[in-house]
Amino acid sequence: MNRVLAHTGARYPIVQAPMGWIARRQLASAVSHAGGLGIIETSSGETEACKAEILAMRQTGLPFGVNLPIRFLKDDAMLRFVCDEAGVKFVTTSAGSPAKFIAPLQAAGIVVYHAVPTLDLALKCVDAGVDGLVVEGGEGGGFKNPEEVSTLVLLQAIRARVDVPLIAAGGICDGRGMAAAFALGAEGIQMGTRFVCSAESPVHANYKQAIVDARETGTWVLNKKGTPCIRSLKSQRTEAYVAEGLMPPDALKGIKDLYFGGDMEAAPALAGQSAGLIDRVKTAQEIVDDTVAEFMAITARLGALAEGRRFG
Amino acid sequence: MNRVLAHTGARYPIVQAPMGWIARRQLASAVSHAGGLGIIETSSGETEACKAEILAMRQTGLPFGVNLPIRFLKDDAMLRFVCDEAGVKFVTTSAGSPAKFIAPLQAAGIVVYHAVPTLDLALKCVDAGVDGLVVEGGEGGGFKNPEEVSTLVLLQAIRARVDVPLIAAGGICDGRGMAAAFALGAEGIQMGTRFVCSAESPVHANYKQAIVDARETGTWVLNKKGTPCIRSLKSQRTEAYVAEGLMPPDALKGIKDLYFGGDMEAAPALAGQSAGLIDRVKTAQEIVDDTVAEFMAITARLGALAEGRRFG
Repeated sequence: MNRVLAHTGARYPIVQAPMGWIARRQLASAVSHAGGLGIIETSSGETEACKAEILAMRQTGLPFGVNLPIRFLKDDAMLRFVCDEAGVKFVTTSAGSPAKFIAPLQAAGIVVYHAVPTLDLALKCVDAGVDGLVVEGGEGGGFKNPEEVSTLVLLQAIRARVDVPLIAAGGICDGRGMAAAFALGAEGIQMGTRFVCSAESPVHANYKQAIVDARETGTWVLNKKGTPCIRSLKSQRTEAYVAEGLMPPDALKGIKDLYFGGDMEAAPALAGQSAGLIDRVKTAQEIVDDTVAEFMAITARLGALAEGRRFG
Repeated sequence: MNRVLAHTGARYPIVQAPMGWIARRQLASAVSHAGGLGIIETSSGETEACKAEILAMRQTGLPFGVNLPIRFLKDDAMLRFVCDEAGVKFVTTSAGSPAKFIAPLQAAGIVVYHAVPTLDLALKCVDAGVDGLVVEGGEGGGFKNPEEVSTLVLLQAIRARVDVPLIAAGGICDGRGMAAAFALGAEGIQMGTRFVCSAESPVHANYKQAIVDARETGTWVLNKKGTPCIRSLKSQRTEAYVAEGLMPPDALKGIKDLYFGGDMEAAPALAGQSAGLIDRVKTAQEIVDDTVAEFMAITARLGALAEGRRFG
């Protein structure tokens, strides 16, 4: 049995990443309706809006999850809401140590996966009792650990040392990536950039088009010496940040103008290297269906190699 | 048919990377004897020594290849030797544009693969007529493109646009990585760090032990604003280079003292992120056998998923 499916209730172990402002009911319900797992974000810090999104998502009756980015939560209001009122069954925690969050969440009957960028943190999380891990390779978009370890390497390093189920994130946007992740021991995948660039994603068409237009070299990591360290699309604005090695504290202030106003220079446009693999906007249903079909075709092809004990 | 096997004559599509000074007859013959493909380096610039290594390798009667790092060749002596005198059937070119090299090599009956860190260069190489590509993800060790695109992403970006056979390099050190690479469309893998840390590798035990000891976060990329940009193990010496953003022009001068004298602070110790996955020195035979066995086990497991149309 696939443990990610057992933990989430989704039909396919395909999770939508919790992008701030973007990962709300419109996108998450489309993903869950398609058989994946929609996640509602709380990293925007818009507590009341996010609560409303979670309640609306719950009303759909579809499986879903909530992300709690520990370092960015102002107080424990969201934790208490998720534990006590929201009917949430699956939570991903991120950005910090989940040690204090695990007990209350699990006591409320919630399954907890923590997102980790290194083996060290993975081991600490397992010691602290997480149910699973989201393994975040350095090629992914958004908030990053400045120690960039690729999904290919990180997944293996963690798989070799822990027994909990792993969801692979970073550089994955289709069934090829999913098959590769499963070869490395993952039981699920998480996709961010791919779902930002979906029909149901609430962002401006300019942002989706910028992802479609990006090459595999179209992103870089900003602010390695500061906080937060992020991977974004290359742009004039971010070029200045790269040259300085740091970005100003208010660099993300204009992000809603970018996300929803389409001003691609208003802030860094968070995206992963997989932007270079995405060549059109798809519906969430197409994304999930295509990913599953491609995963099945590739694993069948690989199985035929094993059966013939050959390599092509 | 696996085209890398057809092109190389090896039993398995497992290629040993051309590490300067290290990739010589002792290591290359052990790899080829084990069923992989040993490659003789010429990047050391020791032309006469490398010629002798190539001739000795040819005498074994085993399949092998030679690497020609275009930018580092002082003149065309090595190219002429490889074309005219050495009985070489397989060449990987790297570090620069292979356009001028392809015609003379192919006219001499030699199959040419070029090592590429980006889709752009891959497309140029295919236009120029290469027989195949070595796709070098940013997690690999040694000389790098400062645009770090991970193997997971780069392999897909290139596979989607070209038809020639691809050898995946960077972050791969076993059958898991090989199965992932094949899921992404590769027909072969190249391993560097794994073979540096083999019994037949001529380097000092300290270097092998440093690879064994390294975690997945144990390397970094130096000299991103200079030439050459390299990935090496973290060390006191390289920490200073990282802080400065550049390394001095003579930074690699002491590399033989490191490789063969075991002084781990004499120079940057070139290695890839897969150092974090390597936990002991193995013989080349063990490396090849274990990789093949693990590849077959994983592809069989994935094939069973496809057969049952399930995920675990």
